[in-house]
Amino acid sequence: MGRKDISERIIVQKYGGSSLSNSDKIQKIAQSIIKKKNTGDLLVIVVSAMGNSTDELVKLANVVTGNKSSSPREMDVLLSTGELVSSALMSMVLNSNNCAAVSLNGIQAGIHTDLTHGSARISNIKTDRIISEIKKDKVVIIAGFQGFSEGGDITTLGRGGSDTSAVALAIALRAKRCEIYTDVEGIYTTDPRLENSARKIKEINFNEMLEMASLGAKMNPRSIELASLNNMPIYVSSTFSESDGTLIHGGKNMEDINPITGIAVEHNVSKVSVIGIEDKPGVAAGLLKPLSDQGISVDVIVQNSSVNGNTDFTFTISESDLNKATELIKTQKTVIFNKIVTGVGLSKVSLVGTGMQNSPGYAAKMFKILSNENVNIDMITTSEIRITVIIKSSFVEVAVKNLHKAFDLDKLN
Amino acid sequence: MGRKDISERIIVQKYGGSSLSNSDKIQKIAQSIIKKKNTGDLLVIVVSAMGNSTDELVKLANVVTGNKSSSPREMDVLLSTGELVSSALMSMVLNSNNCAAVSLNGIQAGIHTDLTHGSARISNIKTDRIISEIKKDKVVIIAGFQGFSEGGDITTLGRGGSDTSAVALAIALRAKRCEIYTDVEGIYTTDPRLENSARKIKEINFNEMLEMASLGAKMNPRSIELASLNNMPIYVSSTFSESDGTLIHGGKNMEDINPITGIAVEHNVSKVSVIGIEDKPGVAAGLLKPLSDQGISVDVIVQNSSVNGNTDFTFTISESDLNKATELIKTQKTVIFNKIVTGVGLSKVSLVGTGMQNSPGYAAKMFKILSNENVNIDMITTSEIRITVIIKSSFVEVAVKNLHKAFDLDKLN
Repeated sequence: MGRKDISERIIVQKYGGSSLSNSDKIQKIAQSIIKKKNTGDLLVIVVSAMGNSTDELVKLANVVTGNKSSSPREMDVLLSTGELVSSALMSMVLNSNNCAAVSLNGIQAGIHTDLTHGSARISNIKTDRIISEIKKDKVVIIAGFQGFSEGGDITTLGRGGSDTSAVALAIALRAKRCEIYTDVEGIYTTDPRLENSARKIKEINFNEMLEMASLGAKMNPRSIELASLNNMPIYVSSTFSESDGTLIHGGKNMEDINPITGIAVEHNVSKVSVIGIEDKPGVAAGLLKPLSDQGISVDVIVQNSSVNGNTDFTFTISESDLNKATELIKTQKTVIFNKIVTGVGLSKVSLVGTGMQNSPGYAAKMFKILSNENVNIDMITTSEIRITVIIKSSFVEVAVKNLHKAFDLDKLN
Repeated sequence: MGRKDISERIIVQKYGGSSLSNSDKIQKIAQSIIKKKNTGDLLVIVVSAMGNSTDELVKLANVVTGNKSSSPREMDVLLSTGELVSSALMSMVLNSNNCAAVSLNGIQAGIHTDLTHGSARISNIKTDRIISEIKKDKVVIIAGFQGFSEGGDITTLGRGGSDTSAVALAIALRAKRCEIYTDVEGIYTTDPRLENSARKIKEINFNEMLEMASLGAKMNPRSIELASLNNMPIYVSSTFSESDGTLIHGGKNMEDINPITGIAVEHNVSKVSVIGIEDKPGVAAGLLKPLSDQGISVDVIVQNSSVNGNTDFTFTISESDLNKATELIKTQKTVIFNKIVTGVGLSKVSLVGTGMQNSPGYAAKMFKILSNENVNIDMITTSEIRITVIIKSSFVEVAVKNLHKAFDLDKLN
């Protein structure tokens, strides 16, 4: 087989932790891998750690160090073992069913990363070993979530990192497709637990999926960005269901679909308003730098127009970071302000769709629907293909239900 | 620090699984490592997997593959994770106590082995990374039991392999000493559970220790052989006791100690006698080759003198291998024989001591003592420094008690 013949037949599949939580599930996945291999596909399988074993390793580290661990390098060594276990087990099961397989860890799979322990970024994948195993007609099982730094130290890619492993491997191997198998059946127009007319989306383009990343499939946004940049199609589907999933791709032939793709919802949002700031350059950086230094992610940012040389600066963060964030802003020395006002119990509801590009009508319609239901809007932010509102969590259900209906998301596209 | 200055200060310590079975124990060991480091020693720590986690991984593999796993390579990937976990945890605890530490896996520690998965032998250790971490004043924590093959695959050294890791590292680093910490206080004259006057031995030489390997400290014989060949002293002691352990060394200045060092006991022995074999060359090989091909270890081997051109061939094996072994002998085609007789419920009792070299009196005395107690001897085998008898397990206690007393093992040496 030449290198090109091989690439054309490679499919990278990723199985998440909930799909691998016990031996029954591992055996079932092995059977479906064997079936797939018998059709002629060359398979590279990326596995996460079994069930919640990563959480248990974190707990173990906390117990052993009395919650005062400060060794990101060692945490990566520890956490990377979860994927090693599942890769070895999956390979064993395949071999014991007469399907030749080999497990590779991050180093053996040639996954080079930078040195940011806990959230390393893949710099390069040297696929020689993988290709040589594929040429021996083996199914290659790769421990997800991990790579190694230039110095040979083990790194991990952060939560959800196995998605990134799978997409990066698909790109490096010039694979036909990357398939993400998980415990949901695909991407939905909105969270089916909030709205029972929520509908599975057959196709979605990368940009929409990036905006929707928190929906249903809970895919790692980094992996979608990576796929988008390299135009690698991702198929998201349920591990144990026969029904079709969702294809995330570059977005050709999508003219005739619904202009609105779906409604994304994120819970546990809190907001911080810094009031009475002198409006001069460097204010945003001065307020946000101390937070990013401590690893706190800021989401929606809104700055009001200046009135009398004073301005207000508001941002949202996860509720769990709220206390730390306000403390950091109080103790920073760069920006002088009047007071801090915080709000909790908020949610973020986003209307997403490529079709709304440059069409202001959608925003107006959205706000009207919410106002009809007496849903008060705290903050608004928009992108080209998304309109996001921050509202009280108690309003989420009524908001989603009415938006879903009004934008015809319950109808087939 | 020059390379020689470093070597003179390096101590390799190995902690076994029972010493690492929970976070309390790991924290206690960390404290004793810190104390030791503060005296100026440069420490390389080899750790086993926590408690019985290796057994649990084996169980997991059996469950997942329905007991039909046949992937020694994948088993090594799986089993090597146990030591990765404990090495990362130990390093975290040290770091969180402001003692700089770094964990290294078999690859990072440069432990090259052959490709015999499950019982690989160390071919070479490239210590560059370890030395460079020591020079940064770090305690180096090494995952025991594992190395890697030329092709970059993970290998394990077999049960008890962490002892071998520790001794091999001590030799490669030209360390001052190798210290093995375990759940017993050292090497005893005999099993203290069988004979309460059993006494801890202060010093023992390598050859005696090799014969005694199954006693008390249950040290891996390979590690003792390796230490002996390279004259690396091993100190065996209890992890959590202050009392002195046993020093195993090259045997200088040992002229004045008791000629008998101790009594080794091994339980669960069974014997296989192949009766009425035509006495010609190749009989032993013909019978034993099929067993070794299946990984069955044969221990004591006795062949009686030929009578009328026929001979009997008897060997002992672990009880768990008995059925498989008799089956293999029945189905082999090389050696023609009359019948197979097996015996179970046996034990092996060995009198060990350099002092008995070329002194036939010891054997005679041993047999007389056993006969006085009506202990029937099934088989006898001797080496230069050991006399071994196979007896019924029910006789072991009375045999050990009387031998221990008669050879003055209860008296201080």
